[in-house]
Amino acid sequence: MKTYSSLIFSTAPWERLHAFLDNQKYSTIHVLADDQTEIHCLPILKEHLSLPISSCFVIQSGEASKSLETCTRIWEHLLHQNPDRNSLIICLGGGVITDLGGFCASVLLRGLDTLYIPTSLMAMADAAIGGKTAVNFEYYKNQIGSFHAPLAIAIDYRFLNSLPDRHVRNGFVEIIKHSLISSPSYWWDITSLEWPLSQSTLQDFIKKSIRSKTEIVEKDYLENGIRKVLNFGHTIGHALESYCMAHNQDVLHGEAIAIGIICESYLSGQRNRWKPHLIDQIKSVLKPFTGTLQISKQDYPEIIRFLLADKKKQNREVHFSLLEQIGQPILNQRVSEEELVNSLDYYNLN
Amino acid sequence: MKTYSSLIFSTAPWERLHAFLDNQKYSTIHVLADDQTEIHCLPILKEHLSLPISSCFVIQSGEASKSLETCTRIWEHLLHQNPDRNSLIICLGGGVITDLGGFCASVLLRGLDTLYIPTSLMAMADAAIGGKTAVNFEYYKNQIGSFHAPLAIAIDYRFLNSLPDRHVRNGFVEIIKHSLISSPSYWWDITSLEWPLSQSTLQDFIKKSIRSKTEIVEKDYLENGIRKVLNFGHTIGHALESYCMAHNQDVLHGEAIAIGIICESYLSGQRNRWKPHLIDQIKSVLKPFTGTLQISKQDYPEIIRFLLADKKKQNREVHFSLLEQIGQPILNQRVSEEELVNSLDYYNLN
Repeated sequence: MKTYSSLIFSTAPWERLHAFLDNQKYSTIHVLADDQTEIHCLPILKEHLSLPISSCFVIQSGEASKSLETCTRIWEHLLHQNPDRNSLIICLGGGVITDLGGFCASVLLRGLDTLYIPTSLMAMADAAIGGKTAVNFEYYKNQIGSFHAPLAIAIDYRFLNSLPDRHVRNGFVEIIKHSLISSPSYWWDITSLEWPLSQSTLQDFIKKSIRSKTEIVEKDYLENGIRKVLNFGHTIGHALESYCMAHNQDVLHGEAIAIGIICESYLSGQRNRWKPHLIDQIKSVLKPFTGTLQISKQDYPEIIRFLLADKKKQNREVHFSLLEQIGQPILNQRVSEEELVNSLDYYNLN
Repeated sequence: MKTYSSLIFSTAPWERLHAFLDNQKYSTIHVLADDQTEIHCLPILKEHLSLPISSCFVIQSGEASKSLETCTRIWEHLLHQNPDRNSLIICLGGGVITDLGGFCASVLLRGLDTLYIPTSLMAMADAAIGGKTAVNFEYYKNQIGSFHAPLAIAIDYRFLNSLPDRHVRNGFVEIIKHSLISSPSYWWDITSLEWPLSQSTLQDFIKKSIRSKTEIVEKDYLENGIRKVLNFGHTIGHALESYCMAHNQDVLHGEAIAIGIICESYLSGQRNRWKPHLIDQIKSVLKPFTGTLQISKQDYPEIIRFLLADKKKQNREVHFSLLEQIGQPILNQRVSEEELVNSLDYYNLN
């Protein structure tokens, strides 16, 4: 049975990365970056990495790059660099780069080692952790992928300084999700935050997120059970992302998940007779994270169609990870189409 | 650490397959076949499988189908069938189908269960065993793949009855390889065979091959060491296959490997001062398995270029698995270009 383990270098990341690489003796080192991290982060990587970089491949930033077409270009590039099984792939970027690069590496020569340097809050707090890799297929999220944990994850919080506010909010949604599935007191901490957050507050939340996600993933790496709690907000969220991809609408992962969390909290509350003000509180905390996406009633059927194609199915029925109470997730919940429509209606209410 | 294990149903395969599937309760079952196995083998599968087959996807037979383009078509087909993580992929065919279908399944929804029904001697004795999956990239063999063992392998020897002689010889090359890396007495058994082989002789050799390969793979599934002995004959053999793919020349895997075994036995013999008649004996046993492929001196540079791009590299040098003596493999042997040329010359000598 496969088990999960990645080293995390969050204090003195470059020194520890340096020592790690010194020890491993890779034959070649290849970097995958996007057009943003090439400008803002690659110089810092090069400054701190004393080993020679054999090649660097740069893709366009954004979810549209998380495709098999990009994989093919990456494999073509890498294979022309003449790698061997002792080559290392460094993924320098946000969740798209770690998901995509991790997948490419996981099947190249039947699996090369990876090292992640997450540069977005989304990647630091969530995407880089847990060893899942994937690309989208057509408009469907993460349909092709693998479990292939990076050997190490080096986190330099300085990368957060150059993040626009929209991208800080994007990543923070996953932190909010962690609070809702973890405990009422963690959720309480979230509700009492004031924006903009200080760097040290942000760092504390990132560390807490990494710890709580790692703990869950260590128990159930291959997602046969308990790991599914992390899907809270993602069933509806992924359907919204697919819908936006199909219609070329600008939405970030976290923005779609924020709406997903509101809707799935509504579903949780309805089933478990929560006091209405609790659902409303969740909605009002999450609303500033939903971006500019508008959903109208005529979009519902298509969104529901995307939802039914989701991976999180069992015996061909979509199963939701919901909450019995805050901090008490409950798995494999079937949800009727009527409930889904009600939850989207609830989100649309002002 | 991943470990290797696949159930083998070679006695009463259909009854045991039936019981196995009854027990597993898959949500959907999808079959991958090629244009040959669709005609000759699918009716037998359907006759014996009492469970409903949700879909069947048929590809063109032959090595050219072992590509990312075919994967994309398979993924497209399967995703439109609305599978879930509890779906099963049955690979019904030779080595191309098990390598390709195994790979497609290994990354679809991050990994679906597979079941192999090998229909060629090559697949029964070698390709279906060991859990390696792969597709070719450009003309390079098996560059994209995974370690993803099928839950079970069901072997119906009756499928061998419809195999043309060329394909029986093709598969038998891997059996000969197993003998050379295993023991002098096993090799002795091979040298004393008379063709055509009876069905019961063939079955005995298949069983012996499965046992010996399984024993090696169980010790070193991810090929960090001892498993490399199975690459004997394959470094030069794969380069020849790549060369043939690039030039649209008709060669079967086993035919290229037969030449690879002759050349790599020559390399082994030269280094370890074997008596010349032993190398000549290996050549004369293998020669009837090499098909119609002609190699001329002017092809050598391109063949060597393909060889240098091979996966079996360490620190960017191609390492050969050779023999010290028959039954005594030796790993990680560097070979000079001059030695390579000599070995190809030796093959070309009458």
